[in-house]
Amino acid sequence: MDWTVEWTGDTHRHDGVVERDFAVEVDGRRVPGVLWTPPEAAGARPLVLIGHGATAHKRIGYVTALARELVRTHRFAAVAIDGAGHGDRRTNPHDDELVVFSDFVTEWSREESTDDAIADWRTTIEAVRALPEVGDGPLGYWGLSMGTIYGLPLAVAEPRIQVAVLGLMGLVGPTRFRMAADAPNLVCPVLFIQQWDDTLIPRDSILELFDAIGSRDKRLHASPGDHAAVPPEEFVFSARFLARHLAAGGDDLT
Amino acid sequence: MDWTVEWTGDTHRHDGVVERDFAVEVDGRRVPGVLWTPPEAAGARPLVLIGHGATAHKRIGYVTALARELVRTHRFAAVAIDGAGHGDRRTNPHDDELVVFSDFVTEWSREESTDDAIADWRTTIEAVRALPEVGDGPLGYWGLSMGTIYGLPLAVAEPRIQVAVLGLMGLVGPTRFRMAADAPNLVCPVLFIQQWDDTLIPRDSILELFDAIGSRDKRLHASPGDHAAVPPEEFVFSARFLARHLAAGGDDLT
Repeated sequence: MDWTVEWTGDTHRHDGVVERDFAVEVDGRRVPGVLWTPPEAAGARPLVLIGHGATAHKRIGYVTALARELVRTHRFAAVAIDGAGHGDRRTNPHDDELVVFSDFVTEWSREESTDDAIADWRTTIEAVRALPEVGDGPLGYWGLSMGTIYGLPLAVAEPRIQVAVLGLMGLVGPTRFRMAADAPNLVCPVLFIQQWDDTLIPRDSILELFDAIGSRDKRLHASPGDHAAVPPEEFVFSARFLARHLAAGGDDLT
Repeated sequence: MDWTVEWTGDTHRHDGVVERDFAVEVDGRRVPGVLWTPPEAAGARPLVLIGHGATAHKRIGYVTALARELVRTHRFAAVAIDGAGHGDRRTNPHDDELVVFSDFVTEWSREESTDDAIADWRTTIEAVRALPEVGDGPLGYWGLSMGTIYGLPLAVAEPRIQVAVLGLMGLVGPTRFRMAADAPNLVCPVLFIQQWDDTLIPRDSILELFDAIGSRDKRLHASPGDHAAVPPEEFVFSARFLARHLAAGGDDLT
């Protein structure tokens, strides 16, 4: 895989978290990302990949909050990238959410959509693991909704991913057959988050996807409310779940 | 309600838990129970009612373990009673599990089965709250499978119950209409535990029961495995969930 990385902008540090912007170049695509690490980090540590949902971007509140929690509390590294047609990958950053969503559905329908997203993530993984303070520690993945559409196949394609938090998605949409084919091959521990009253993704299709996941260690957490109403406690539980499965590699734990 | 309580046997104390046997007499039935409290307990505290599953009894491992955890870590009180036809309510304590289960199905089919179980619990609540070290603190309920068959209607009938852990049950069996009628009237926070590969209770009927529960604050936790394979972490989560909702009343917190 041919790729380049460019570390863009300044390194910011506040409240116990170092934050760096970067962009990787993969197959002619420029993929902007952000890396969060603990201050004075030395040596390899667990790295959590965070995939945002449709119409969002790499710095949306829940992504940033989870990344900072993982860095601050566990001294992990965390990285997020903009999905295709999202965030800094849009020509016009002021497009309406409906336009962004419509573009996403077009992208989701493109035959190479999933494989390109996997390539974007793999390049990102190589680029940030080249930093000595990230290194070759274990990988975790967190991504709901669009973050599961691309994250589930990624976690299957990338055996270094040792734990995944997925959810808000079912066997629906243009890549439902790809998800259905990949799910049984997912074997790492999985936390699957469902919103019981999700009006965007039919309940049965969500339970069907959870059912199809091959992992022996998987659990479903369902809460009342619509697609976007994931309660704060599931984010707290997510961080603990990732930490529990990745905690062997942080420099605070050696 | 006419009732009497008899404190039977000695008070045992080990590892930070005081344990006392009792029996309440209600409508001519003798209902044996066990109460767990912290040592040197003074004043009212939260009380958790623990209902065992079919073929088990008031001192089965998971009941005792949860009670001791609630007492030790949170200084709550906990109480369990034998269900009708279970434990010390059996004439022959050496009956085979299949005989006990068959008797349970007969009992479950008896028209007054649910209301009698509610009366047993209500008498138990009055009896143990008469002790100053239990007093009139908030009530919680924990019971899976048979513990939900009777516990869900109890939690609806008894508004002092402020939080409930239920599960391993669906809209099946002789009292499915009673459960279906009661569930929408349940309004306290609920943790509902499901085993995804439950071969005893059909998956759809479980999801139907969870769906019917009226509580705005409810959550479903599903884990792989058959009916009896609830993983240890759900017991740990149960205790934390109960504690979080009841924690205002313990003497360690005033």
